[in-house]
Amino acid sequence: MESLDTIMSLAKRRGFFWNAYELYGGVAGFLVWGPNGTVLKRRIIDNWRKTFLNLPNFTEIETPIIAPEKVFSTSGHLNNFKDIMVKCKKCKKNFNAAKLLNQYKITNIEINSISQMKSILKKNDVPCPECKSSTDNPSEFLTMFKTTIGPSSERIGLTRPETAQGMFTEFKNVYISQRKKLPLGIAQIGKSMRNEISPRQGPIRLREFDMMEIELFYDPLNAKCHFIKQIQDYEINILTEEKIQAGEEKLLTLKIKDAINKGYVKNEWLAYFMALSSDFFETLGIQPCNQRFIEKLPEERAHYSNQTFDQEIYLSSWGWIEVAGHADRTNYDLTAHNNEGKIDLTAERILKNPKEKTIFKIQPNYTNIKNVYPDKIAYILKNLNNYDNQTLSDILKKDGFIAITDSSNHKIKLTNKFFIKEKIVEKTNVERFIPYVIEPSFGLDRIAYSIIESCLIKKEDRLILSISPKLAPVHVGVFPIVSKSDFIKKAKKIKDLLIKNNFSVIYEENESIGKRYARADEIGIPIIITID
Amino acid sequence: MESLDTIMSLAKRRGFFWNAYELYGGVAGFLVWGPNGTVLKRRIIDNWRKTFLNLPNFTEIETPIIAPEKVFSTSGHLNNFKDIMVKCKKCKKNFNAAKLLNQYKITNIEINSISQMKSILKKNDVPCPECKSSTDNPSEFLTMFKTTIGPSSERIGLTRPETAQGMFTEFKNVYISQRKKLPLGIAQIGKSMRNEISPRQGPIRLREFDMMEIELFYDPLNAKCHFIKQIQDYEINILTEEKIQAGEEKLLTLKIKDAINKGYVKNEWLAYFMALSSDFFETLGIQPCNQRFIEKLPEERAHYSNQTFDQEIYLSSWGWIEVAGHADRTNYDLTAHNNEGKIDLTAERILKNPKEKTIFKIQPNYTNIKNVYPDKIAYILKNLNNYDNQTLSDILKKDGFIAITDSSNHKIKLTNKFFIKEKIVEKTNVERFIPYVIEPSFGLDRIAYSIIESCLIKKEDRLILSISPKLAPVHVGVFPIVSKSDFIKKAKKIKDLLIKNNFSVIYEENESIGKRYARADEIGIPIIITID
Repeated sequence: MESLDTIMSLAKRRGFFWNAYELYGGVAGFLVWGPNGTVLKRRIIDNWRKTFLNLPNFTEIETPIIAPEKVFSTSGHLNNFKDIMVKCKKCKKNFNAAKLLNQYKITNIEINSISQMKSILKKNDVPCPECKSSTDNPSEFLTMFKTTIGPSSERIGLTRPETAQGMFTEFKNVYISQRKKLPLGIAQIGKSMRNEISPRQGPIRLREFDMMEIELFYDPLNAKCHFIKQIQDYEINILTEEKIQAGEEKLLTLKIKDAINKGYVKNEWLAYFMALSSDFFETLGIQPCNQRFIEKLPEERAHYSNQTFDQEIYLSSWGWIEVAGHADRTNYDLTAHNNEGKIDLTAERILKNPKEKTIFKIQPNYTNIKNVYPDKIAYILKNLNNYDNQTLSDILKKDGFIAITDSSNHKIKLTNKFFIKEKIVEKTNVERFIPYVIEPSFGLDRIAYSIIESCLIKKEDRLILSISPKLAPVHVGVFPIVSKSDFIKKAKKIKDLLIKNNFSVIYEENESIGKRYARADEIGIPIIITID
Repeated sequence: MESLDTIMSLAKRRGFFWNAYELYGGVAGFLVWGPNGTVLKRRIIDNWRKTFLNLPNFTEIETPIIAPEKVFSTSGHLNNFKDIMVKCKKCKKNFNAAKLLNQYKITNIEINSISQMKSILKKNDVPCPECKSSTDNPSEFLTMFKTTIGPSSERIGLTRPETAQGMFTEFKNVYISQRKKLPLGIAQIGKSMRNEISPRQGPIRLREFDMMEIELFYDPLNAKCHFIKQIQDYEINILTEEKIQAGEEKLLTLKIKDAINKGYVKNEWLAYFMALSSDFFETLGIQPCNQRFIEKLPEERAHYSNQTFDQEIYLSSWGWIEVAGHADRTNYDLTAHNNEGKIDLTAERILKNPKEKTIFKIQPNYTNIKNVYPDKIAYILKNLNNYDNQTLSDILKKDGFIAITDSSNHKIKLTNKFFIKEKIVEKTNVERFIPYVIEPSFGLDRIAYSIIESCLIKKEDRLILSISPKLAPVHVGVFPIVSKSDFIKKAKKIKDLLIKNNFSVIYEENESIGKRYARADEIGIPIIITID
């Protein structure tokens, strides 16, 4: 349990991470991952892929960070991805109003509007946390970065606050390239951005960060997860909506199968990912007792969600922090994009028993047309070809005739008597529907930070990063105990051999062996070979 | 040599890539990488890391995409990263003026200002490429995306057009965490963005793309590359500034050692990376005859560069396209940031023979002070302590005295007689300097695209992606020849065995074996196991 200062200082000294742009005074919410931090993140990604993507029909894509505004107006983010901010009357600094209330222990208030926030701020006389003057003027602030795409100022671009929308807007192409099979898992690992009002939680609250997300698309008539048996006995710590509503705070520890059977987790895929995820964090070195799932209350849930669990990790410096979210997004996003976009986003369900579908096909009544327009029948038929069945039916219902202009510019009105309504029964074994979605979503930077903090221990004044060997940025250190040529020769031979076998190795011959050991401990090198 | 339509259609059908946001009519310059494309990109990255980062003291970091404006005003991008655009008088669309001139074969004109561009456009009466009306109003357009960081509109953020500035602004922390050793290679793989005026080259000209860059920092007094011997006999195709200036267009094919000895490539590290890079592309499947290095002329070079080679690949659909750049950036960037920023960005050179440095240390003349200000000597000495040596010297030189205000608000003027100048000779074996930089820089998306186009062949009406097995997104296809239970059982056993051994496998049992083969050919699966 080291202080935040100790952690931040080690992280910088040993090339894990540090605050970006220190050269220019720093900009809150931006982090740099140094040589060891970058490798740590990569190893976490490798483990995540192994855990979550090693399933049939699970795949990974890469979509842009910047999206045209239309994507986020359709997804609902443009309306919902806002924070209320307040300004200090004196120092003019802006703060996130909800976080400010939280800081002054004014909690459990549901705020839905600017005017509500205004009256609460006034009633509680909430001061500026920096200069202690009064705060005022709550206003809405869009927490997506806004820009313009190309030179026309009308084309607004927004940076994605989650990678998820890419999986929805591009669903159809992936679905087709994967041969239209469901369930289909589409994952994405990449940058997301949130323009936080005033991020003040160092490495935890970032404006630019990496996410690892899966959107699992499934047929709601076939919502079973085939792999549930493999993880049904996994135990998780959970606090359900029911318990929270009843004012209870004690975590339940129970098996996944019980969480499903008792109806706490309403979808098998959701439960499956929660089990995998709990195991994933344990493998990374986070003890089960420091993990929990908290169900979001209806008013706390994102606008698209039917059920959501935050997965949290306990850190001594920051308390419980969210490192992943597991959400049942229903068919909210795909439906919205399907309705607004130019591409049909439905999937196909193959029916065991073909379905009969009755349609009325409107055909020209050749006899009647020939009788009335003997010279123009070819022209008329050619023109009628331009209408599809639905259009013909609609116009006839509305106007009572189809108007065709002949070559001499005369209007021909074809009333109902010039058509025959033919009843056709079509058989089809394909039914179209919009898939439902379960989403496990991970914050990579927070996970990397949490591992560093959780693994840092002190032993007789020496800091040791007791990180799992599978995550260690450097696998082996090779040190000749003294700087003599035969020691060095032997050591370099070993180093080269290890590198050839894909180990990540550091070789150091200078400084005292004690200093070299101490440095290796701080980097979390699991194996040191000393040539003695 | 397939048509662009054929390539784009296969790329989409087989999940390699497609234009983003088709759902909303498309936005030029944004690409989606599908399931196979994402794996292809990852395999290219793996190969790149193996080729370029497997050197002592080469490391990788990750810095933010958004930077405060100060970073790019200092680096010179804010002034230099602009294109001139023109507007169509009628349809009001904007175009990149230089590219428009190029399109109408108006080349070889050096344009340095808006007014020059105006007169050239007028003289040549350059029409709108879309509606053929006149164009007018050339203006400058910043090709970095602009946004604001946080709620204050004054804090401008820009998206990086290259990852490089991150390696410069964060150089010092990396240098220290890597124990101050030079040469130091700092690499970064990540997104960069360029707000192109009107990108019209499909997958080639992107607004959002991945770069793989290395900044190699070295001591200019020790500019030799230790690994040059390993690659000195590699051959490259090159067109030098000298030849271009002389109007020659024929490529020279020569060994790296000759390119260095003849002075064509002025820096060993630059030559080293060019050799590695040429080999790298060959390993990826790009024939040497389709590769070339073109030296940029002084007026074409970026503002920071002393010598630059574009590395180009020949594609039948797009001609020669730039896939990498190799630049001698000198100490331009670090010097600029060192001068503007709050952190010293110099490195240390350990001298074999310690250097003597004479400084004049200004000490208080205790005797004189005591004589004149017997009661105030302690107060005066305490106050003088606030000045460093340089400041004391500067003020004495300028004003002739140091002014101290005593507790009763009286000014005490300490003239030169109250000080003693002591001559001190310091020995130091450390000399500070700003490192020089060689930069190999790669465009990942263009490389991935180029590989797909270069490897696509047609055989009896069937498209085959004859991609190198080390890049193939799927290693093995396992197909039971017919859908019978014993065939399927055997096939699934083989599939599971392969997956356990880290092969990327697809298993398919439906459709005719011919269709499955054809699909496998289009994905570029090198091995098919058919259970017969």
